[in-house]
Amino acid sequence: MSEALAAKAARLDAEDELAKLRDRFALETPSEGNAAVYLDGNSLGALPRNVPERLAEVVAHEWGRMRIRSWEESGWWTAPERVGDRIAPLIGAGPGRVVAGDSTSVNVFKAVVGAVRLSGGPEQDRDEVLVDATTFPTDGYIAGSAARMTGCRVRAVEPAALGEALGGRTAAVLVNHVDYRTGRLYDLPGITAAAHAAGAPIVWDLCHSAGALPVGLDEHRVEFAVGCTYKYLNGGPGAPAYLYVREDVQPAFDSPLPGWNSHADPFGMTSGYTPADGAVRGRVGTPDILSMLALEAALEVWDGVDIGAVRAKSLALTDFFLECVDAYVPGGRLSCATPAAHAERGSQIALRCDDAGEVMRGLVARGVVGDFRPPDVLRFGFTPLYTGFADTERAARVLADVLAGVPVAR
Amino acid sequence: MSEALAAKAARLDAEDELAKLRDRFALETPSEGNAAVYLDGNSLGALPRNVPERLAEVVAHEWGRMRIRSWEESGWWTAPERVGDRIAPLIGAGPGRVVAGDSTSVNVFKAVVGAVRLSGGPEQDRDEVLVDATTFPTDGYIAGSAARMTGCRVRAVEPAALGEALGGRTAAVLVNHVDYRTGRLYDLPGITAAAHAAGAPIVWDLCHSAGALPVGLDEHRVEFAVGCTYKYLNGGPGAPAYLYVREDVQPAFDSPLPGWNSHADPFGMTSGYTPADGAVRGRVGTPDILSMLALEAALEVWDGVDIGAVRAKSLALTDFFLECVDAYVPGGRLSCATPAAHAERGSQIALRCDDAGEVMRGLVARGVVGDFRPPDVLRFGFTPLYTGFADTERAARVLADVLAGVPVAR
Repeated sequence: MSEALAAKAARLDAEDELAKLRDRFALETPSEGNAAVYLDGNSLGALPRNVPERLAEVVAHEWGRMRIRSWEESGWWTAPERVGDRIAPLIGAGPGRVVAGDSTSVNVFKAVVGAVRLSGGPEQDRDEVLVDATTFPTDGYIAGSAARMTGCRVRAVEPAALGEALGGRTAAVLVNHVDYRTGRLYDLPGITAAAHAAGAPIVWDLCHSAGALPVGLDEHRVEFAVGCTYKYLNGGPGAPAYLYVREDVQPAFDSPLPGWNSHADPFGMTSGYTPADGAVRGRVGTPDILSMLALEAALEVWDGVDIGAVRAKSLALTDFFLECVDAYVPGGRLSCATPAAHAERGSQIALRCDDAGEVMRGLVARGVVGDFRPPDVLRFGFTPLYTGFADTERAARVLADVLAGVPVAR
Repeated sequence: MSEALAAKAARLDAEDELAKLRDRFALETPSEGNAAVYLDGNSLGALPRNVPERLAEVVAHEWGRMRIRSWEESGWWTAPERVGDRIAPLIGAGPGRVVAGDSTSVNVFKAVVGAVRLSGGPEQDRDEVLVDATTFPTDGYIAGSAARMTGCRVRAVEPAALGEALGGRTAAVLVNHVDYRTGRLYDLPGITAAAHAAGAPIVWDLCHSAGALPVGLDEHRVEFAVGCTYKYLNGGPGAPAYLYVREDVQPAFDSPLPGWNSHADPFGMTSGYTPADGAVRGRVGTPDILSMLALEAALEVWDGVDIGAVRAKSLALTDFFLECVDAYVPGGRLSCATPAAHAERGSQIALRCDDAGEVMRGLVARGVVGDFRPPDVLRFGFTPLYTGFADTERAARVLADVLAGVPVAR
């Protein structure tokens, strides 16, 4: 059984047109000897090979020798828009709609407040911010603050029940495109259309979908989107996040963080605030240049890569992982929290068992790196740019070994 | 005349106990041949020599090989507090009161909203946020948003008139410790005491004072302070800013940006928000690790440095610069916007002339790097850790040459 699946993995790897992209990353030789199988790219993407040299140049030359002149001559000042435009095609956005900077949490605040103000808010009797009940915690916390500061209240709603919850009181909707815990993919076109039918703008959190599957922000007329860049976009630990604002919404976008970088004439240093046009309006303070330019270099791994092909491989990888787990792990030992239907699956597999924390420690000790999310979830992220089918088969095999050797808790 | 001042510069450099610190930075040989005189450390500090190697290790080893394990094993998760504690002694703060992260603008928002809430705000009839009228623009813009979102209004007040403006309606006060344009130092102890006498909490912006002079936050019982780290702290372009919250105020600090990093149990991933105790409460989202750890390395240049000695040298440098300018530049060609009194002077000299933009271009072309602030200000920042007296004499001499050769505008 193991031999048949290993042979299948070898065949799938040989047929994989994206396999060569792995060379763009600083990773050990795949699936040989004790090399790690890194299935945590949904938490921190691997290091693109070109980043160290580029960052060394930024530090030694641009900061060390050019110093202040680099803000203009090395293009530092415009990096947030330039990086935004590099992210844009990966999430279905045209140029001039995305700006990089700040953390995802800070961008959630900008977007939710922006959405409430766009809707008219409490003055138009729209005083409810709907948040998916399964959200990543920070989205809920920040939405709570945004609601409090705009005279609204937050209502947590199961995504399946959003349709019923939407209505004339809805000021804004905040939904995670892929559930960070289960890997469930939500219906962005359908939920966006439902929000619009209720007259409400929507904010999508793309942290767990950008770089793993097509998003189609412009096509589906999403008002706002946010996301991080350190997962499937491989931008580095805590790399700058991004904010998308739909083109026709930009002139009305009223940011709660109108820092001087978003001013129409930032170096005019005037005491009155006049917002810039376009994506720049989403900027706040001076951008973190070292992290920003590391991210810019990291995004070069996407040159010539079709996100549709990435999605196809992602589904093939997660299908194959489930096939291997089914074959290797005795029935009943694990349950799968990730939907079987492709239309409802992101690029990770979440498996549940009571002793998940202990199992993950065993996996990591054996070189298979996923992560544990309380109370009972083993998360395995599949990054099509550098994860192969042999990696996937090996991960399932090691998982079965660990499960066989680890005593069940309680 | 020039020879006498050059000789004086040589003597002052020889007597300067901080002169050896220049070796901690990647700078050209001072004041020889065509080496630049860098007087823009009040905009972007020079590169500390140890940063490139440390950052290369973070990228190649901690991100590239350790990957996700570095959040715990390389101490990434706790870096914001650790870096905060390194900044703390430079601004007169005990440990556990400062946290690094986000931009100055974002921290101004946290601090001003936090201060308004601490005062009781409009519910206690405190609905005015006083901002110094000469503030760096972003502080005013962000204070305007903070006021709008807490039911207050902003009142811009000349710092000299703050005493009269303070009263029972004051919800918060935001003042820049050093005016970014003129280099004027404001009376932190006196203004803070006046705010407290009116029952109002105060926020100090330390961007242009931290690392150049003693601040004394704890001593003067300042509630909140913010600052950047890329000027006199040499943390790198757009390096993370910081937030100080007075120890006894921390339990009541109600942040408008309650991201998951500020949660008492961030990895519990609970839907309810419970703020952490201490400085951690000022965190928001995932910290920018590359920039943060470059900053941490950069702060090592302060090891064994007494901020009192830095202040003494700073005043000696600016005094000497004024002496040289007086000697070299014909009377009436420039006016000095920076106060003569030491108690009112930061670590920069601002000289005014109608053609300041053109003059600064001429200076930069001749290797003397300051900056221009509209409409008519030449700014020269003096960083005692790496600026010497010979640099200073040369800058004044080149300034005189440029002024002699550049036709006066209009």
